This record gives sequence, structure tokens and C-alpha cells, in this order.
Amino acid sequence: MKFCSQCGRPVTLTVPVDDDRPRHVCSSCGTVHYQNPKLVVGCIPEWEGRILMCRRDIEPRKGYWTLPAGFLENGETTADGARRETIEETGSRVTDLIPYLMVDIVHINQIYLMFRSRLVAPDFHPTQESAEVRLMEAADIPWDDIAFKVVEKTLRCFLQDRASGRFAFRTDRIEKRELVK
Amino acid sequence: MKFCSQCGRPVTLTVPVDDDRPRHVCSSCGTVHYQNPKLVVGCIPEWEGRILMCRRDIEPRKGYWTLPAGFLENGETTADGARRETIEETGSRVTDLIPYLMVDIVHINQIYLMFRSRLVAPDFHPTQESAEVRLMEAADIPWDDIAFKVVEKTLRCFLQDRASGRFAFRTDRIEKRELVK
Repeated sequence: MKFCSQCGRPVTLTVPVDDDRPRHVCSSCGTVHYQNPKLVVGCIPEWEGRILMCRRDIEPRKGYWTLPAGFLENGETTADGARRETIEETGSRVTDLIPYLMVDIVHINQIYLMFRSRLVAPDFHPTQESAEVRLMEAADIPWDDIAFKVVEKTLRCFLQDRASGRFAFRTDRIEKRELVK
Repeated sequence: MKFCSQCGRPVTLTVPVDDDRPRHVCSSCGTVHYQNPKLVVGCIPEWEGRILMCRRDIEPRKGYWTLPAGFLENGETTADGARRETIEETGSRVTDLIPYLMVDIVHINQIYLMFRSRLVAPDFHPTQESAEVRLMEAADIPWDDIAFKVVEKTLRCFLQDRASGRFAFRTDRIEKRELVK
């Protein structure tokens, strides 16, 4: 951030009065521009024991497999956002959303919130964002070709809990070093 | 938002290519400025069955009672943020944080995440943000003087679950009309 979004004049990085950390502050109108983490919402869509996954057709990690997820938008609930992302990436509608896993990814200022969910019907198709969409048996999950660490964690937690027959809300975090393969 | 934070030129509200909703787009450099909901993190701090509450000394809702909570900052986990807010508003450290309640407040683009927690010691004091900090018995909670609907919901859920002896992660939402007393 270099300029004030309110008046267009330059901002400087400085600690405002009554604050304890540097913020982008407008040198002209004084507006303080706060920057906060973003929430990424997504689903583990199930159909008869299989999990709906998509192979990314966009960067980053084009060609790798993922679960439907994306940034929560203004004007929607977390569950609405997860439903929308699933439609956008798989063409499929989900229902019975239950918050399942929250993952702090501090070094990129993102919080993931993944929901368990059920497909309304086994209707899905490639989309603008996904070259391929497929219902996967647990044994078929392409562990070496998963797009993001958070997706791998989500799937491992989910399969473990499903095997034990006992789901609870979970939290986890991803450190920067974990991203290196 | 009126000006581009990258180049200082005016932005216009328009639907970018490959997008489905209006964004602030720079008419000069083309930067798309996304705006997303913010996460508010906070605690229900307990000490020997009592709950630590604070009477706000800042607007909005100055003079009303609340639980420690505030915007999650870049560079911290959700639990770190809840701990920090508790120190800032009550002077007290909390431990054993467990995610308890997530509340969608769509009309103000906020998601609340409240943690159950335990005071490390019954040390607390007024702060810059709180005129008074007090351990409350359930019977003493000033229901008519609670600062925010989300705090009232959190306390009611918590007391109900505590009475039943069974806590699970909960979700809720607050509609605009609920804010009118």
C-alpha cells in the first residue's frame, strides 16, 4: 500500500497514537488503513463415501488436486461462502454443512475454515477453475499431487475421524517450513 | 474506497473480467481491490465458575458490558489474537483456549470467533479500553447493559452448555433486525 484509498495522497508506515504496531497512515487526511487476515472457506463434499475433489486449472498450483475453497466475500455467511466456492469450482451443490476444521496460516495471513458437507446429487463437471472434477475413494486420493498443505491436512483429519466414527471441531496451523516439499 | 492504494489514481466500481461482482478497480494501473469480511476473536475467560467481563470505556457502546474481543491482526493465530485482546481489555492472561462459538454478522461483514478459556490468575484491572473489569457470577450478569448482541448470545450459549455439562463447537448468526432493542 502506497497511497491513501480515501484521498489519493501518499501513506507512511507509522504507529498511530493509542496503537502498538505500524499501520499505513495517510500523511494528508490522517486515515489509518488497517490490514487484517482473510478467511478462506471450503468444503469436504461427500457422496456415498467418496470425496469430491478438483484438479486446478488456474495458478497457483495449476494441475494439482484440491478441495473447493476460496476467500469469503462481503455479504455472505461462512457456510454460504463454502457453498458458493463449491459451485464455482465443481458445478455441484452441497448441503448439511458442519464446521469441521479451522487452520491458522499465519505467514500468509489466512485462516481456513473447512466444512463437512454432502452433495445434493452426484452432478458435477469441469469449470473455469477446475480442469477435472472427480469423486475419489479414500484409496484413490492422489497424495503426491495435492495442491496445498491445508488440503492434505484436511483430508487426513477427515479420513482419520471418519474411520473412528467420531467427528469433532478441530483446529490446526501450518508453519512456513511445512510448505517446502 | 475512492483511490488506488498502489498508484493513487481514482478507482471505479466495476465487474472485472472473469469475476461475478463489482470491485474497486483502478482506472489507471488496473489493480483490483478486494474487500473481505474481518474476523473478530475473543474469549469467555473463566475463574472458579465466574466470567471476566469489562465495561467499555471507548465508543461504540461506551459504558456497556462486554467480553474481551477485537479484530484479528496480521501475523497472529486466532487464539493468539483472542489472548492479546484479553490482555489489552482486562490486563489478564488466559490459557486453555478452546474454540467455542462462531457467529456470522453479515450486514457488517464480520465473523466472530469466541474461545472458552481460563484465567491464569485472578489478576485484572481497568485498562485504556475498559473502565471496569469484574468477575461475574452468572446471576450477576447485567443482561440489560450488554454492549453487543453477539456478546449476549455468547454468554447465553455458554451458560446453557455449562449447565448441561456438555460443550460442543457452535455456530450462530446475527441479523440486522436483531440489533434493534
